[in-house]
Amino acid sequence: MDFALDERTLELREKLLAFMDSHIYPAEQELLGKDVAPGAEWDRPSVMEDLKEEARRRGLWNLFLPGAHGAGLTNLQYASLAEITGHSPGLAPEALNCAAPDTGNMELLAEFGSEAQQRRWLEPLLGGQIRSAFCMTEPEVASSDASNIATRIDRDGDHYVVNGRKWFASGAMSPDCAVLIVMGKTDPGAERHRQQSMIIVPSDTPGVDIKRGMHVFGYTDGAHGGHAEVVFTNVRVPAENLVAGEGDGFAIAQARLGPGRIHHCMRLIGMAERALELMCQRALDRVAFGKPLAEQGVVREWIAESRVRIEQTRLLVLKTAWLMDTVGNKGAHTEIQAIKIATPRMTEWVVDKAIQAHGAGGVSQDLPLAHLWAQGRTLRLADGPDEVHLASLARRELKKYKG
Amino acid sequence: MDFALDERTLELREKLLAFMDSHIYPAEQELLGKDVAPGAEWDRPSVMEDLKEEARRRGLWNLFLPGAHGAGLTNLQYASLAEITGHSPGLAPEALNCAAPDTGNMELLAEFGSEAQQRRWLEPLLGGQIRSAFCMTEPEVASSDASNIATRIDRDGDHYVVNGRKWFASGAMSPDCAVLIVMGKTDPGAERHRQQSMIIVPSDTPGVDIKRGMHVFGYTDGAHGGHAEVVFTNVRVPAENLVAGEGDGFAIAQARLGPGRIHHCMRLIGMAERALELMCQRALDRVAFGKPLAEQGVVREWIAESRVRIEQTRLLVLKTAWLMDTVGNKGAHTEIQAIKIATPRMTEWVVDKAIQAHGAGGVSQDLPLAHLWAQGRTLRLADGPDEVHLASLARRELKKYKG
Amino acid sequence: MDFALDERTLELREKLLAFMDSHIYPAEQELLGKDVAPGAEWDRPSVMEDLKEEARRRGLWNLFLPGAHGAGLTNLQYASLAEITGHSPGLAPEALNCAAPDTGNMELLAEFGSEAQQRRWLEPLLGGQIRSAFCMTEPEVASSDASNIATRIDRDGDHYVVNGRKWFASGAMSPDCAVLIVMGKTDPGAERHRQQSMIIVPSDTPGVDIKRGMHVFGYTDGAHGGHAEVVFTNVRVPAENLVAGEGDGFAIAQARLGPGRIHHCMRLIGMAERALELMCQRALDRVAFGKPLAEQGVVREWIAESRVRIEQTRLLVLKTAWLMDTVGNKGAHTEIQAIKIATPRMTEWVVDKAIQAHGAGGVSQDLPLAHLWAQGRTLRLADGPDEVHLASLARRELKKYKG
Amino acid sequence: MDFALDERTLELREKLLAFMDSHIYPAEQELLGKDVAPGAEWDRPSVMEDLKEEARRRGLWNLFLPGAHGAGLTNLQYASLAEITGHSPGLAPEALNCAAPDTGNMELLAEFGSEAQQRRWLEPLLGGQIRSAFCMTEPEVASSDASNIATRIDRDGDHYVVNGRKWFASGAMSPDCAVLIVMGKTDPGAERHRQQSMIIVPSDTPGVDIKRGMHVFGYTDGAHGGHAEVVFTNVRVPAENLVAGEGDGFAIAQARLGPGRIHHCMRLIGMAERALELMCQRALDRVAFGKPLAEQGVVREWIAESRVRIEQTRLLVLKTAWLMDTVGNKGAHTEIQAIKIATPRMTEWVVDKAIQAHGAGGVSQDLPLAHLWAQGRTLRLADGPDEVHLASLARRELKKYKG
Repeated sequence: MDFALDERTLELREKLLAFMDSHIYPAEQELLGKDVAPGAEWDRPSVMEDLKEEARRRGLWNLFLPGAHGAGLTNLQYASLAEITGHSPGLAPEALNCAAPDTGNMELLAEFGSEAQQRRWLEPLLGGQIRSAFCMTEPEVASSDASNIATRIDRDGDHYVVNGRKWFASGAMSPDCAVLIVMGKTDPGAERHRQQSMIIVPSDTPGVDIKRGMHVFGYTDGAHGGHAEVVFTNVRVPAENLVAGEGDGFAIAQARLGPGRIHHCMRLIGMAERALELMCQRALDRVAFGKPLAEQGVVREWIAESRVRIEQTRLLVLKTAWLMDTVGNKGAHTEIQAIKIATPRMTEWVVDKAIQAHGAGGVSQDLPLAHLWAQGRTLRLADGPDEVHLASLARRELKKYKG
Repeated sequence: MDFALDERTLELREKLLAFMDSHIYPAEQELLGKDVAPGAEWDRPSVMEDLKEEARRRGLWNLFLPGAHGAGLTNLQYASLAEITGHSPGLAPEALNCAAPDTGNMELLAEFGSEAQQRRWLEPLLGGQIRSAFCMTEPEVASSDASNIATRIDRDGDHYVVNGRKWFASGAMSPDCAVLIVMGKTDPGAERHRQQSMIIVPSDTPGVDIKRGMHVFGYTDGAHGGHAEVVFTNVRVPAENLVAGEGDGFAIAQARLGPGRIHHCMRLIGMAERALELMCQRALDRVAFGKPLAEQGVVREWIAESRVRIEQTRLLVLKTAWLMDTVGNKGAHTEIQAIKIATPRMTEWVVDKAIQAHGAGGVSQDLPLAHLWAQGRTLRLADGPDEVHLASLARRELKKYKG
Repeated sequence: MDFALDERTLELREKLLAFMDSHIYPAEQELLGKDVAPGAEWDRPSVMEDLKEEARRRGLWNLFLPGAHGAGLTNLQYASLAEITGHSPGLAPEALNCAAPDTGNMELLAEFGSEAQQRRWLEPLLGGQIRSAFCMTEPEVASSDASNIATRIDRDGDHYVVNGRKWFASGAMSPDCAVLIVMGKTDPGAERHRQQSMIIVPSDTPGVDIKRGMHVFGYTDGAHGGHAEVVFTNVRVPAENLVAGEGDGFAIAQARLGPGRIHHCMRLIGMAERALELMCQRALDRVAFGKPLAEQGVVREWIAESRVRIEQTRLLVLKTAWLMDTVGNKGAHTEIQAIKIATPRMTEWVVDKAIQAHGAGGVSQDLPLAHLWAQGRTLRLADGPDEVHLASLARRELKKYKG
Repeated sequence: MDFALDERTLELREKLLAFMDSHIYPAEQELLGKDVAPGAEWDRPSVMEDLKEEARRRGLWNLFLPGAHGAGLTNLQYASLAEITGHSPGLAPEALNCAAPDTGNMELLAEFGSEAQQRRWLEPLLGGQIRSAFCMTEPEVASSDASNIATRIDRDGDHYVVNGRKWFASGAMSPDCAVLIVMGKTDPGAERHRQQSMIIVPSDTPGVDIKRGMHVFGYTDGAHGGHAEVVFTNVRVPAENLVAGEGDGFAIAQARLGPGRIHHCMRLIGMAERALELMCQRALDRVAFGKPLAEQGVVREWIAESRVRIEQTRLLVLKTAWLMDTVGNKGAHTEIQAIKIATPRMTEWVVDKAIQAHGAGGVSQDLPLAHLWAQGRTLRLADGPDEVHLASLARRELKKYKG
């Protein structure tokens, strides 16, 4: 057992931290509290192209992607870098071309895409020229149970025809979003986990109606590409747009989940670190009732508790990344669920305390805290509510004791 | 001891519940999820004037105000009605002319205002013709300690000159806001609680600069009149605009707090009831993994817990209202702090669970839950963070055991 | 609505508080930390008879019992007195002849007992000459579901024959325990809630084997009469020992539960008040790192939180008592469950913090805190675990929304 | 970074698990629920000598001790073994000669003892022939602040004279306890952390009065040697009994703390694992309201939550052990505090849920759970209450942001 980071990770961390200081935080400061012009809320901030270029120049590009298509890092190596991007989650991940849902979509195309699909979609995504969306969740059903998916993908000659309604389709509100990856059923009569398929739908295909951006606690998450409600009405795409084969949708979705979970969780840890940093600075600066908050026992407990909770959670996520690298997605199943449960609420707790230490400013647009909180809270729901994961994890634990 | 509601309260509750059903909920349904036109976000919803007229017609007007100016209810009687308005906090309170900060401002003018001040400002407020704002919190200092207030109110001949910066000035973003009541210091050299005064500033006075609306977790709370940052630069108002005398500001603010606390807390209880209702309906409707949420143990615990927490908190707030009616603001001091501590977090907890039961929709604009949550959370900060109240309450508890 | 205590309650409270000061606390101080002689652990403390005599002399006797047999107080009136006895739960309740399980047994005999049963058992119990036990819980089954009860009560001519194993039979370890009231099944084939009956078993009946005292977190609760494991082997008692009729057992148990719940909960509130008092005194006396605990923010929060939680819980229990007085056991069903859920954990929380404030002494025999804690904790299990009550309460809440 | 256990640890784990199965659990089962004969409560269980011999035979002896005197394991290697002994904390640690406070005393003697001290005391301790006690905490002062220590160690010619009162002196109630290591002040006028010294006092020295065993939630912890109150009255010991030099007491105590913290925490994790195992078995076996607890959502959440919490805490403790091995006690300071805060409450939580799943049996002597709980709870106090560690950890966190 060895808890030290390896050379390459340490070196990339150095580089990334320098980039955060020199480019990301100044850009963030520029944008914070700024009102967005009506109609422009789904645009990328104008500084983004510069940030991307600079990150690329510094070798901080596509770090999330293992294998030949990407930087070739292990999950464990990338984890510590993803954490740092979480310090400024609205800017840093995209600047490094490491933002969801593009990361998951690129992984998916790299692993399951045909050569033609990779050329047509993976390459411009890797280059940061286009953005993409992922369409899984549906408003009418409990989507954490994939057998509920109601969207249909029906074969019709050389084409598939997609019909259905999705929401919280991340990325789809962006004007740069060129392609949607859509989960639907090709064979509702098949075995539970072989009914679903995954298909590539260019966003300009007739019948694709991006209706509106869903809000998240009042935030549109515009700069991220938002969370769209999308209606598919007789959307025809060539048959070769199917990813892998009919019935592979569930397996692909599962494969996509593991690394995404690590990324999300490490970014959440980075958000918690950012909130703790802001809380400490506030505690030292703010005087109330005659002494700085930093000398008041309750605030001190928040700070210490935050440190303890962050450390524990980080170790769990790193171990999960290590398991994924060494025994694979399946062997890490329990841990992948455990981090989904443990991380968002840790972040939620730490950010809540940081908000409280800031008073009214903490809930406002002048600090990143309220938005960080909303992201943490939402991840107790995204990819299935915690309760689904708790139930599943318990079943596995109980299995050890069954006859 | 008797836990039954009196006749008049029961009768008004009936009437109010009927009005909620016939007018408020339909209007709410109409507005929910609607995007507001750019620029119009601070406007009252157009239906508001109709709602106000109807409420007035039904005798549901100014119920909050004791004494001759208002409906003459006790705090205890109004409390149960305020709770009901919390079921739809964006519409019902204003429809009944019972919305903050106007209620507090009307109480203040009714109790401390001169006859001229009452004629000029109280009357149109009671009539619902104008709205008002309350300017207390300042960005640079810990405003929960009134001795920190930096805004100056300086006498200059027949006038006072106001200079300072306020934020989270509720109501000030509304185009209907005609007047601001401002807390500032007239004599920084006086005894700690005699330095402050309260003054009436018409919103069109030169030097009043309403700079921007502060956000609350992504919400502008536009329909409520928002929470403004307001800068006062050499704002001259006639000396008779001072409320009561120089140095009375702190005492007036304290007097204003008590009933406002009851109103806020009872509305929060109403919000929790609304969230519990939505959670129950969802639990019965939504099927996941083969059975309705209502048959899943964890969701059942949320529901039961919510009921237990709501009941306890309501009794505490009602007892506080009763104490205010029988022994006055001072005698109810401990309880007024206790409800400030206990109520927002109860609401926050219940709404959080209701959100979780709704999945992604719960955080979106399609349900009132996320906005309800933000309001509950914010009240852990508004009127001073909980920690200030906990510390003060503890001091009083400890006093019992001191020599 | 009126939150003031009535005259009679106020007067009895005065008397009881005086008795606590003059007799109970001194006796408690005498006993605290004393080791019990081996073999004498189930004896009443020798001071008990004097305390009983004195309480009786002062008119503080059988206060728990409504109607002609007892003091004639309402549940609401007695509630505030039961709370005070909770300040010293090892001595005060028995000194007033208000200790469980005798109280429940007396209520049961007063309400359902035949005249002969009352003469034979109720009178000496009311006089404090004998003690009694209640035998409900069984080790092998989930006893919170009465249909699981395995103990048999079989008619055999003029007798009933009892066979079964009970545990946590409160009171049965006491040398003064003269009688056991036993729940068992007379007709396992009957409708679910008509299978059970309740029977009176003198403790010296052949076949009654009081095997051992069950511990509770290391405590034998000897002075309370302990919690016995009792085996009944062909125990024959006259048929007239049955309480009410065959099949009435479940209904009697339910009727017995309501007031007992109030008593337990109010005593728990008294325990919490005692713990808070000790915590405050400690906070003022103990200096650590240069200042008294009372000036350290974290301890102050514990004190304030304790006050807030106690107040809320007390109101809920008092309202429940009032409901039982006005609409009866059935009408108060939700509230009776709610207090079972809310009260023990409140007490547990407050006592835990008081322990923490006392350091190592807090967990030791030198202070009553650890034992108070164990009693609070155990009541999250006694009368059925909280989870059973939560589930049932949720079902009732959900019913409101069903077609 | 590598989360795999090394070869030697894996091999020793195998051996230890086999020993637990073949010897410890059967012995535990034998003792569980047995009443201890009056007067014999401080005796070792008679099976202990056999267990010790067997452990020694299997090479499972003194594993805790690094360096030549012991098994030579690193802290990290021993940590995983200490966890396993926590499955049966009343028997396994002592059977392996790895029980507190002997472990700490042996470490202390091995590191700071003179050759003569080692020959006289360390050797029989390593051989398991005698036991020892550690006397630090005092009843009258906040002992978490070492500058409060009131016990005096005064030089008098060739001797030191010890005067003072200690309590919770672990191990001192055992008839086998031959020696006490006592912390006291040799120079109250010296610099804060140079006032204290550590001295060896044979337990039969005149003036040593072992007054009584302190209880911990009703437990005497007799088999562990209990927690004694000890009064020292003019206790004369030769000057060479001082450990290291005058004024070294604080530094020695600090050095003793680090590994002890790891041991305690890993055993606590073992206790939590044991509780989780019992909870799972109960959940599968126990049927309530028609289905096994294992199919009830709430119990499933307890199980899953327990797994998640245990995993996180274990990683934190292991990392701390690794830090101690690689950067030393000082470099691991933050983490040593963090595990003190995080571990006991994790164990407390898990055991509490296991108790709840067991109903009344859970709090009784028939299962190890209530006693496990008491041990977990007590460690929120032992070695200083959590609050002291939280405050200190926060100070270190804040330092990062100070000018």
